[in-house]
Amino acid sequence: RHHNPIAEMLDLPFLPFCAFLGGLGFVCVAFVSAWCQHWRGGFAVDGSAQMFNWHPVLMVTGMVVLYGTAALVYRLPPAWRGPKFPWKVLHGTLALVAFGLAVLGLVAVFRFHNAHGTPNMYSLHSWLGLATVLLFSCQWLAGFSAFLLPWAPTWLRALYKPVHIFFGSTILMLSVASCISGINEKLFFSLKNGTTEYKLLPAEAVFANTLGLLILLFGVLVLGALARPSWRRPDADSPDSCQVPALLRGH
Amino acid sequence: RHHNPIAEMLDLPFLPFCAFLGGLGFVCVAFVSAWCQHWRGGFAVDGSAQMFNWHPVLMVTGMVVLYGTAALVYRLPPAWRGPKFPWKVLHGTLALVAFGLAVLGLVAVFRFHNAHGTPNMYSLHSWLGLATVLLFSCQWLAGFSAFLLPWAPTWLRALYKPVHIFFGSTILMLSVASCISGINEKLFFSLKNGTTEYKLLPAEAVFANTLGLLILLFGVLVLGALARPSWRRPDADSPDSCQVPALLRGH
Repeated sequence: RHHNPIAEMLDLPFLPFCAFLGGLGFVCVAFVSAWCQHWRGGFAVDGSAQMFNWHPVLMVTGMVVLYGTAALVYRLPPAWRGPKFPWKVLHGTLALVAFGLAVLGLVAVFRFHNAHGTPNMYSLHSWLGLATVLLFSCQWLAGFSAFLLPWAPTWLRALYKPVHIFFGSTILMLSVASCISGINEKLFFSLKNGTTEYKLLPAEAVFANTLGLLILLFGVLVLGALARPSWRRPDADSPDSCQVPALLRGH
Repeated sequence: RHHNPIAEMLDLPFLPFCAFLGGLGFVCVAFVSAWCQHWRGGFAVDGSAQMFNWHPVLMVTGMVVLYGTAALVYRLPPAWRGPKFPWKVLHGTLALVAFGLAVLGLVAVFRFHNAHGTPNMYSLHSWLGLATVLLFSCQWLAGFSAFLLPWAPTWLRALYKPVHIFFGSTILMLSVASCISGINEKLFFSLKNGTTEYKLLPAEAVFANTLGLLILLFGVLVLGALARPSWRRPDADSPDSCQVPALLRGH
């Protein structure tokens, strides 16, 4: 599908990219868990700081890694062939699990705040993060209603599809921005008034800053993979991607 | 260029969108200036906190508003006709001015830190922000060498163009994430140990949180406009956008 022989030669195959991305996602979850376990005292469900620690782990796992996986389902070559419905179910299920983890992540931070008399929803991180999860809930419900329930007419699906795709990428961007601001904020909270001040860049700060950059890299790679035309499922019913009939694209 | 009559009916014209976006960009610059002027003591060039205040203003103006403007130059309908070179010069010049403001914004924060004995480059915000500006400098130099200097062969331009487009959007995303984390961090620094603690959500916090969301909206709208296929310059020499010869697209 390339005009340029050099571009064709350099064309990246999807599956090795996917393997790398999967590894990177695993490293993100491992890093955020190790940060909370090793430096922040581990995990609990008692409203303590150990309860808070579920918040970053669940958010990174749900809103970034699982969300990114769900977004890429249609880019898998097996999804290009045969009926689309099973892949829709997989996409919706992964997104629903991601949403469930995000809700648990919110419960963790609200319970922690309430147990300590800390107000909720004052920082820009909290505004952005909650807006992201709310947008995600709308996105999931609208996607489920339009694409999985059999009632929506074809013209409505065709009209909503580019909107769903756009918000899909946007919500991932918002998730990553929320993670970055959250990690930054948590480090300022945790590393202060001691020998381990954030500005002295102790090992924890280097580790968690690196975690932030890895999450960012994961998000950028998912968005890049989504935007890559040659990795798209060649669909007859997609007036949103190229606005050229499938016939003219050679399919 | 739409298959669907309803999609065609709802199609958004570019120029009203542009007017709205321009207004939003102006509001972002006005908000960040008002925040620094009204709550953070105004501006100076003496290494004081008033010198720091140039940092958010220059970064938002350069890396978000001017950068976004530069990114959208080729989407202007007049740029679709006639020779492309003047529009390349405009794109490169706007990006260069944006880069210049970003460098001045970095000077402001480094001078402020050095005058106060505060270490540089420890927070995730600083890592992400500096990485963004460095990426931007590479992007500008590579774009200038490949597209404005006459030496690059056509195949190299064709090969580099999708990379330039991808990093163009990515750098804007990184800029927005840097702004969000920076505003969040600055509010935790400034609003503490007093009656105006951040967590009590004083007027300044509401104002600056809103600024963060407005910057985010500006970035998302620019990225959405860039991704919209019907707003792209219909170019014969763009194997990156649809990988369909211009002839087949009806131009």
